[in-house]
Amino acid sequence: MSDLISPAGQKIEGPADLAPFIDHTLLKSDATSAMVEQVCDEALQFGFYAVCVNGAHVAAAQKRLNGKSSSRGSVVKIAAVIGFPLGASATSVKAFEAREAVDAGASEIDMVMRIDLAKTALWGELRDDVAAVVNAVSGRAIVKVILETSLLTSEEIAASSRAAEAGGAHFVKTCTGFSTAGRASGEATLEHVTLMRQSVSSRVQVKASGGIRSYETARLMIAAGASRLGTSSGVALVQATTIESGY
Amino acid sequence: MSDLISPAGQKIEGPADLAPFIDHTLLKSDATSAMVEQVCDEALQFGFYAVCVNGAHVAAAQKRLNGKSSSRGSVVKIAAVIGFPLGASATSVKAFEAREAVDAGASEIDMVMRIDLAKTALWGELRDDVAAVVNAVSGRAIVKVILETSLLTSEEIAASSRAAEAGGAHFVKTCTGFSTAGRASGEATLEHVTLMRQSVSSRVQVKASGGIRSYETARLMIAAGASRLGTSSGVALVQATTIESGY
Repeated sequence: MSDLISPAGQKIEGPADLAPFIDHTLLKSDATSAMVEQVCDEALQFGFYAVCVNGAHVAAAQKRLNGKSSSRGSVVKIAAVIGFPLGASATSVKAFEAREAVDAGASEIDMVMRIDLAKTALWGELRDDVAAVVNAVSGRAIVKVILETSLLTSEEIAASSRAAEAGGAHFVKTCTGFSTAGRASGEATLEHVTLMRQSVSSRVQVKASGGIRSYETARLMIAAGASRLGTSSGVALVQATTIESGY
Repeated sequence: MSDLISPAGQKIEGPADLAPFIDHTLLKSDATSAMVEQVCDEALQFGFYAVCVNGAHVAAAQKRLNGKSSSRGSVVKIAAVIGFPLGASATSVKAFEAREAVDAGASEIDMVMRIDLAKTALWGELRDDVAAVVNAVSGRAIVKVILETSLLTSEEIAASSRAAEAGGAHFVKTCTGFSTAGRASGEATLEHVTLMRQSVSSRVQVKASGGIRSYETARLMIAAGASRLGTSSGVALVQATTIESGY
């Protein structure tokens, strides 16, 4: 069994090594400020890469994190979701929402793409929806584009990934975690991550999200090309003491 | 068995009489423009009160409806959802989103309230979130406030209804139809509709939404105080030929 090395050269030898890959995620509609603060505290404690929250909670996360360094010595970033989880708000609204989130402290934007445009193969319009958000926060935040892969065919996943790159996306991301339609109940699959990795250039990274609840799954996603993991199970993931038999 | 008369004095003798109560709803993330156009055509054909769509589709609905009168002689209105379905976007974003929707042709705004503020009993902040949207479209559109009742206790439903009225809401509305949490899988219940009707003054109307798929259910909701029904099953509802045994 060989070592698993991330695309960024990080060696993953045990659960705790997953921390810098993780966007620690709290997106439930009834998540309170106290729960957001707890997620921020956990991110500092365990050294997660970022917290991922709804727009209404960016300011509270910014106040709680307040530029503090985590146990790993890194500053925990704030990722805000945009047009979430349906992706069906107007492009002008997504751009405004992204700008507001960045003004409040976010440096990462996780936007949901216009899924209907993929279903109707309007790739130029899909690219423009992404580009509007990228331009709205240009130089101030990176943009991840959520495809909601469970609703798409393989061809639509590949073409959407290319359209997102053409729109200036820094990441393509699998799932919102909120879709109950489609196969696998809205969970990321290795097949999707592999396909997305193959569909974009090396300038674009892949974030796997949805259903990542075990060290083994996380390792497999990273091996397939994911350099970021979105999960609400981050604490359980990095605290697991059993090392699953490897990949 | 006595006749059912709506609060607006309309007599409901059969399924077709439900049409003027119905917001014909299409909110799926992969709903295409062609599907939006079909919903508009159905609204014109069956005389629904309004179509209810995501922000990205308001302009397409406006173009399709184009001020035409329905089979009932009424102009079909456009309702746009805001902060949907989590209610967790920033207040400034909800206000902007509402204004953009009205500029594109919506005359009804169905906003999701900040559910977390109800869970933490921050009623003044909940009222202010509503008021910001009401003020953003004042005089140009009515505002319905979606509580997502399946996530709330009876006390939270009553207090949220009062806060929505204090914020200037024209309607309180039960559910998004997208919540899988809570009892009854995010469906409106008669108990909730009754409670909401009792919690607001006569100036505020009640919209029941989520799980309304039969004539019988629709009648019961209206009898409990709902003057509008949100459903994606409107065509099936009004076309039902079997008159269920009455209420």
